[in-house]
Amino acid sequence: MKLFRFGSIGREKPGVRTDDGAFDVSAFGEDYGESFFGSDGPSRLRAWFVNNGKGCPRVADSERIAPAVVRPSKLVCVGLNFRGHAAETGAQIPSEPVLFMKASSALAGPNDALVLPRGSRATDWEVELALVIGAKARYVSKAEAPKHIAGYVLHNDYSERDHQKDRGGQWVKGKSADGFAPLGPWLALPDAVDAFDTALWLSVNGEPMQRSSTSDLIFDVPTLVSYISEFMTLLPGDVISTGTPAGVGAGKTPPRYLEPGDVVEYGATGLGSARHVVRAPESA
Amino acid sequence: MKLFRFGSIGREKPGVRTDDGAFDVSAFGEDYGESFFGSDGPSRLRAWFVNNGKGCPRVADSERIAPAVVRPSKLVCVGLNFRGHAAETGAQIPSEPVLFMKASSALAGPNDALVLPRGSRATDWEVELALVIGAKARYVSKAEAPKHIAGYVLHNDYSERDHQKDRGGQWVKGKSADGFAPLGPWLALPDAVDAFDTALWLSVNGEPMQRSSTSDLIFDVPTLVSYISEFMTLLPGDVISTGTPAGVGAGKTPPRYLEPGDVVEYGATGLGSARHVVRAPESA
Repeated sequence: MKLFRFGSIGREKPGVRTDDGAFDVSAFGEDYGESFFGSDGPSRLRAWFVNNGKGCPRVADSERIAPAVVRPSKLVCVGLNFRGHAAETGAQIPSEPVLFMKASSALAGPNDALVLPRGSRATDWEVELALVIGAKARYVSKAEAPKHIAGYVLHNDYSERDHQKDRGGQWVKGKSADGFAPLGPWLALPDAVDAFDTALWLSVNGEPMQRSSTSDLIFDVPTLVSYISEFMTLLPGDVISTGTPAGVGAGKTPPRYLEPGDVVEYGATGLGSARHVVRAPESA
Repeated sequence: MKLFRFGSIGREKPGVRTDDGAFDVSAFGEDYGESFFGSDGPSRLRAWFVNNGKGCPRVADSERIAPAVVRPSKLVCVGLNFRGHAAETGAQIPSEPVLFMKASSALAGPNDALVLPRGSRATDWEVELALVIGAKARYVSKAEAPKHIAGYVLHNDYSERDHQKDRGGQWVKGKSADGFAPLGPWLALPDAVDAFDTALWLSVNGEPMQRSSTSDLIFDVPTLVSYISEFMTLLPGDVISTGTPAGVGAGKTPPRYLEPGDVVEYGATGLGSARHVVRAPESA
């Protein structure tokens, strides 16, 4: 069973995918947020679906797929967590995880258009494996970390490099535009994903750009959950994005950034794929 | 009318303060979060209270005061926004606002104990004027910015300087521990605060440490709201903290950081005061 959300912006509903198709589980009465994940929601939903699935409406293929979770308390990202990516950006290999945050208002569906921020000249892609927290985590050991993970989801940590690096201070400025955190198409439960060897790929206009596996992560998933929980409490539903491999636009000579009309496609083993058409900024 | 929240952690309720005292407004049926602020909540509550205030229970002075808002989608902070503070930290005067985020899981009440993070050797204080967003803001001009502000609240941007600066990467790591974002005692409505000249003060164990006014901000409140809205969408209930004046512990020679038993007291014109007793870290 995979969890997903669907419907137009502001009217999104929870759904599940099984071998039999995609079903609307609004009747379960909970959306995929902090309260759901904090009360063993996936297990409760699975049990409910066994008894009630036959009465659930099918979700049409034409429906918009929404972000896989709703309103996480935070979206914590890990920077420079692949050697090749650290090298291509000119950064040193970090001795401990580099953390930054992305505004949750940046969440988007996996096939929504990517609207460039106004004035953007350097919007870049970053395919990543993200995880969603199940049980609250504070000072959690690596050994205990897996018990705090509700599942995994595909993420693209879109980044405006000028805003990230050349506008004074911290990266959050280039990471938080609307649409910069597409999350989906679905949340896979932990038993369906090998977080230590999930293949990641991304292409732009059909040209391969990123291709790697989380087996090359400098800091693996249990290490990251444990490490982050040393600095802040991770709440159920919170999202951690684990870092991108080499092949971003900023690493090319000359740099290659996104322009209106570009098509970004990416995916990960067991986590499906996503596709964004790039659009010009909204006019002032 | 001032808005505040009270009650034990996890069982907090909304309240209002008037010249007649403090009242429990649970019967209004809304807590002070995104949905309340996004639907002109303060005005609706004021109108409701005129008709229903007499039936509202009084809040006892012995009640814990809770964070003034509930679960903002984000807490955006501004760094180095007073010349004196930039100078004392050895930083240059920024040419545009320095932004960073704090985990909303760091929110606390204005008189809760401040429990040091494990291993902390450099926990520091930062009294600040914070504002709460009323109406969604994206690409908002300075002139329009005031229409997007629901009110003002006292904040202390507690910071673990080693975690902020010496653990690799971005400041969020030293800004997000539980209790590092006390917010309150109350939210003052915009007409009750002069955001261009709000006095700020802070003392440790009775010794004055910070004393300034937002008249010395490098970037004023409308400038900040407009600027931040260029990089991300500000949602109703989001919190922006505008920066701290000179007088932090890191700026002293030698640095002066918080230790168990210290008492931090601070306040701002029209926004009341707060008091935290510092406690040793939870044991492992």
